[in-house]
Amino acid sequence: MLEARVPALAVASLIKDAMLAVGMPDVDAAKCAELMLEADLVGADAHGVFRLPQYVRRIKAGGVNPKANITVEKTAPATAMVDGDNGMGHLVMQRAADTAIALAKETGVAWVGARRSNHAGAAGVYAAMALPHDMVGIYAVVANANHMPVWGGAENILGTNPVAFAVPAGQEPPVVLDIATTVVSYGTVKATKLQGKPMPEGWMVGKDGRPLTDSAKSAEGLLLPIGGHKGSGLAMVLGLLAGTLNAADFGRDVIDFNYNDTDECNTGHFIIALDVSRFIPVAAFKAEVDRHLRDLRSSKVLPGFDSIRLPGEQRQARRAERARDGVPIYPEVLELLDKLADELTIKRLARS
Amino acid sequence: MLEARVPALAVASLIKDAMLAVGMPDVDAAKCAELMLEADLVGADAHGVFRLPQYVRRIKAGGVNPKANITVEKTAPATAMVDGDNGMGHLVMQRAADTAIALAKETGVAWVGARRSNHAGAAGVYAAMALPHDMVGIYAVVANANHMPVWGGAENILGTNPVAFAVPAGQEPPVVLDIATTVVSYGTVKATKLQGKPMPEGWMVGKDGRPLTDSAKSAEGLLLPIGGHKGSGLAMVLGLLAGTLNAADFGRDVIDFNYNDTDECNTGHFIIALDVSRFIPVAAFKAEVDRHLRDLRSSKVLPGFDSIRLPGEQRQARRAERARDGVPIYPEVLELLDKLADELTIKRLARS
Repeated sequence: MLEARVPALAVASLIKDAMLAVGMPDVDAAKCAELMLEADLVGADAHGVFRLPQYVRRIKAGGVNPKANITVEKTAPATAMVDGDNGMGHLVMQRAADTAIALAKETGVAWVGARRSNHAGAAGVYAAMALPHDMVGIYAVVANANHMPVWGGAENILGTNPVAFAVPAGQEPPVVLDIATTVVSYGTVKATKLQGKPMPEGWMVGKDGRPLTDSAKSAEGLLLPIGGHKGSGLAMVLGLLAGTLNAADFGRDVIDFNYNDTDECNTGHFIIALDVSRFIPVAAFKAEVDRHLRDLRSSKVLPGFDSIRLPGEQRQARRAERARDGVPIYPEVLELLDKLADELTIKRLARS
Repeated sequence: MLEARVPALAVASLIKDAMLAVGMPDVDAAKCAELMLEADLVGADAHGVFRLPQYVRRIKAGGVNPKANITVEKTAPATAMVDGDNGMGHLVMQRAADTAIALAKETGVAWVGARRSNHAGAAGVYAAMALPHDMVGIYAVVANANHMPVWGGAENILGTNPVAFAVPAGQEPPVVLDIATTVVSYGTVKATKLQGKPMPEGWMVGKDGRPLTDSAKSAEGLLLPIGGHKGSGLAMVLGLLAGTLNAADFGRDVIDFNYNDTDECNTGHFIIALDVSRFIPVAAFKAEVDRHLRDLRSSKVLPGFDSIRLPGEQRQARRAERARDGVPIYPEVLELLDKLADELTIKRLARS
């Protein structure tokens, strides 16, 4: 499965053409393309163009509204609610992030919720939107399928509900932490199954409570949270704040968007923007963050590790490299994307 | 080691008398007593009166200022910075929480940072302060000792940096999640060592990278983060936001307050208050939270578990029971507290 490199612009063109073909207005199609490509550029490969066939399928089936009229209501000086009108999550979250950043410029911090949204791709992309404004970004979302039980439970009633933090730095790459609250993402499980490999102990248990390592049986398995009851509690709290607080779905209400193409997901998200300058001068903060990152990176390496890698430190370099040399895409994915292009009678993805 | 039950009022009296004896003004001493007792009442036993001898020792040695002039600077409509003047963390965080709640009433959300503070006891106590105001509380702090390496590292350069969330509910107990970013707290390691028991694999590794199960050697060990690189990343981000953003200590700068009684810790914290009513009517939110909590609790139980327990659900009942029947305190701790009382020539803890 050697990956081909596809020019970034070609990836964006395919996404835009596909969105136009299913009825999305030009500006929105271009924005979706930009944000999905961004996931591919920074290395969130499971959240970029790879998702396009599924998105198109749900739009065509009526599950997602391609002509969404996204509205923003400011509910207090530092809070707002975005109603996504069942549009693409990427468009909803761009509006939510823009709103949070604009409000935080006035109030120092802002918390923006979103309801009636959909899958938005890579969490880190939205948290990182705060960085050029010398702000900290924090983002969370209710995942679009339940693959985890509550701690002590045997029913998949919680999502992998991810959270992302972005913290500005100076000379060093900014810190971008983008993590699911499960030990591994369900995407990793699916990839392991596709390759016919066993799963290591600690990823999943069966409904009997025993370690499940046979990836062929993963569909009946339960993903394990990070830190046992701790990760379960985090997934729960993030779900209540991203979902329930926004009158969006959580828990038993969540629709598995892998199997249901027609129902509105009512995905909820939240994003926080925090203005560094209201706490400490920006230059002083960045210099201190740099110093701490260097301290951490240069601390003694544990036997078994090559080096210490900090969250997000490869992001900038990877982004530059992929913008220059193209986005790596597996042949299997290329094939699916060609099939999609043919179905939509749009131009196939141009190879480099 | 049978625990004695000591009346809650007696615990508060001892703490107040001790704080008065080391020069704290009456109002502050009473507040410290109230907040330390609160930790004991809700079950954060390692963060209540158990800590009193250490607090007194550091105050007497000059490491903590008993006559702190805590100041609050509002830095934007929704942000503020609390300067603790090296006072007790409990007093600093009470001010920070009050400030966050007051600001959030106006702006919908508020983020308050604190610098030049000290250990504040149980994280959950501060997050929970938002609950009576129908607000969500989120609290984090830089721990006062480094017991964890960064992921891939072999030097203890990060703290267990805990985070707490409090989410209001209706008929159900509110959700209060109070977790360290390590698999177990260092207190649990110390307790295991005291009892001469081995540690299960997964708590610590040695500097050789191998599992460390001999608790007698725990002082040379490295605590493991929840979810590997994920918990390490969380500890790092929380530390940058609670510490560095507030010009407070983080990473290599952190003083181990177990071994250093004389230097200012410059502990940093942050607290967020979020007004539910700016997102959804409070009654609707509470009803939905109740519904989800019941769904989670009544989901199928995994073999090996007796029941499903949700974060904080025993807190209210435990608080009521301990307020009525007394705080359980181990004889070893009682002995230390008697010794402390004698040293300070104050009244010993009255037994029930």
